[in-house]
Amino acid sequence: MRRPDQQTTTRPTPDAAPDTTSSPAPPAEATGPGTERLPDATGTRGPIGDLTTEAVLAPYLRRQAADFLRSLRLHHEHSAPADSGGHDAAAATRALRRAARRISGSLHTFRAALDPHWADQLRAELAWLSGILAREHAYANRLSRLVEALHQLSGPALPAARGVRAAGEGATSDAQGRAALGVGAARAGALLERRLTLARTRSHSAALQALGSSRFHAVADAVALLASDVPLAPGTAGGTAEALLEPAERAEQRLLAAVAALPPDDTEPYNEAQDAAWHQARLLLRLHRYAHEVVLGAVDPVLAAPGHALDLHRDAVEAAAAAAAAARTPRIAPATAYALGVLHADQRHDVEAARAVFRETWPYATALSTP
Amino acid sequence: MRRPDQQTTTRPTPDAAPDTTSSPAPPAEATGPGTERLPDATGTRGPIGDLTTEAVLAPYLRRQAADFLRSLRLHHEHSAPADSGGHDAAAATRALRRAARRISGSLHTFRAALDPHWADQLRAELAWLSGILAREHAYANRLSRLVEALHQLSGPALPAARGVRAAGEGATSDAQGRAALGVGAARAGALLERRLTLARTRSHSAALQALGSSRFHAVADAVALLASDVPLAPGTAGGTAEALLEPAERAEQRLLAAVAALPPDDTEPYNEAQDAAWHQARLLLRLHRYAHEVVLGAVDPVLAAPGHALDLHRDAVEAAAAAAAAARTPRIAPATAYALGVLHADQRHDVEAARAVFRETWPYATALSTP
Repeated sequence: MRRPDQQTTTRPTPDAAPDTTSSPAPPAEATGPGTERLPDATGTRGPIGDLTTEAVLAPYLRRQAADFLRSLRLHHEHSAPADSGGHDAAAATRALRRAARRISGSLHTFRAALDPHWADQLRAELAWLSGILAREHAYANRLSRLVEALHQLSGPALPAARGVRAAGEGATSDAQGRAALGVGAARAGALLERRLTLARTRSHSAALQALGSSRFHAVADAVALLASDVPLAPGTAGGTAEALLEPAERAEQRLLAAVAALPPDDTEPYNEAQDAAWHQARLLLRLHRYAHEVVLGAVDPVLAAPGHALDLHRDAVEAAAAAAAAARTPRIAPATAYALGVLHADQRHDVEAARAVFRETWPYATALSTP
Repeated sequence: MRRPDQQTTTRPTPDAAPDTTSSPAPPAEATGPGTERLPDATGTRGPIGDLTTEAVLAPYLRRQAADFLRSLRLHHEHSAPADSGGHDAAAATRALRRAARRISGSLHTFRAALDPHWADQLRAELAWLSGILAREHAYANRLSRLVEALHQLSGPALPAARGVRAAGEGATSDAQGRAALGVGAARAGALLERRLTLARTRSHSAALQALGSSRFHAVADAVALLASDVPLAPGTAGGTAEALLEPAERAEQRLLAAVAALPPDDTEPYNEAQDAAWHQARLLLRLHRYAHEVVLGAVDPVLAAPGHALDLHRDAVEAAAAAAAAARTPRIAPATAYALGVLHADQRHDVEAARAVFRETWPYATALSTP
């Protein structure tokens, strides 16, 4: 974490940098009148040392809380039976999750500056909510990812003549193989569509049920309170905002340590045992990004690309697992299983590719063990 | 093709460069007394302009013919029923194929300098022989390649605890997936072993039968004549060896054109339609190498790495086709088909990787279309 007073004028105005790795930006009215903004909304913010902890942390949390409540209202509007805006409802859910993640992350990182009992409780409830809301999106995303991969498999037709030479059994086998793969890919696609659509529908029902539950209303109430009043730790409110730098640095150090501990690149796509360490790095990168947003009032642009790579990594890991799970369906045809095997392997190769992109785009060269 | 008079002293002594892409070097006695060697055997050879065509081409063909006959004798010795040297017989077959390829390639490239009727006939017979002899080796190679890939698939065990977080269905699915893959991989391995061992045994019988046929004896007689007398085109023998440069340059130009026409890298592993163009480049690279050996009396070291990449490319293409063919076995279990699908995909990714290595190691940067 760069300390704010290390900021130089050569840095591009960070507030203008798009947050490419996250869900859509908050609705336009977030910048309108009456909306709370950080003091640096115009990109002219100086060091935070002369601000109080409350002046830095509370506006951020209040803004996220307002986004949360606005997204919730939008979701209710677009989920009305007469409304055909399934897309808008999904966008509202994404914005809701986005705000929930930022509140939760800030409660975690800056716990010492907040009422700890309140922070722990709200964080646990936001984690419950985020988990439920994320699932529907994840299944939809997984299905479209796998269907697209299958489409590429059975995609370009073979030319009529192969020319050059008959490579043993090669040429004929390839043509037959492609045809067999086409049949298997179609059946695998249908199987995955059934499985993941069912899972998605169940998740959708679970999300709607959660959003109507008394447990959710308690969360919404807590966030509504947060939008007006941030419960700081006793004696923190008037203290200098420098007190936020140490926890923010710790978040960065945890990220750097996790990245440094990532297993070296061995180009072995079936090392599922390493997935967890990469997922952990993804979560820590997020926490660092949110802490950076709080302290510097802007996203950290150098982490957009590696963050995106870690998102793709997670998606490919879960898509590979979904292909493997579908292959365990009883009584499927060998051609279907074959196509699912190809799919599994392709997704695991995508896992490797995402790791490679992360290594290439990771800006802190010394903290990354490469082969 | 560099003209010999363009050779500079900064070039590493090319005669010492190992021929890494080919089968084992000819037996040690090839360099002993009584063996014909090119005038540059000590690495001190100058331009060939002051040599005759016969002085350059004939010794090369005679040497390859001698290697052919020596390998044939070794093969007969090691194939005796009392002899346990299956390995030695295989090494002798490789040396036989190596010499046959070089004779055949030279007859093709330098056809204009030779008795064309004789050259065409011997080349056709050598192609027949090479094809039969190559098959046994190819099946054995394919099997070991696929078994090794399967071994990697079911290789490292998952750790007992996954830690960090439960990623939806991910963690459990991965463990189950790995276990299911292990079972399928073992069955796929057994299936491939049955199929390819059978094919290999048949090829072995076919090779033995061919080596005992009157057709083969006619080839061996022709090569024995070649070892003492090279039938040059009328009027060629005393002409200057510069006449060999033009066909050698044409061989190089065909290679450069084929490489330039290779499809650009689209990182799409299932483009079997492009395999043929890559196989063609491999054959033309060989012809260029042999022509280079004739004219410069040495292997071209800069083409060792791309040549090796094209060999790996061919192996991976054929291994992928073998996995696909095995998956079409009737009544196989879905788990077996699944593992074969993974195997197919992995081999196709190896195809892509070999193409990438070729692009990286190809020394003529301008002649290669990259994305």
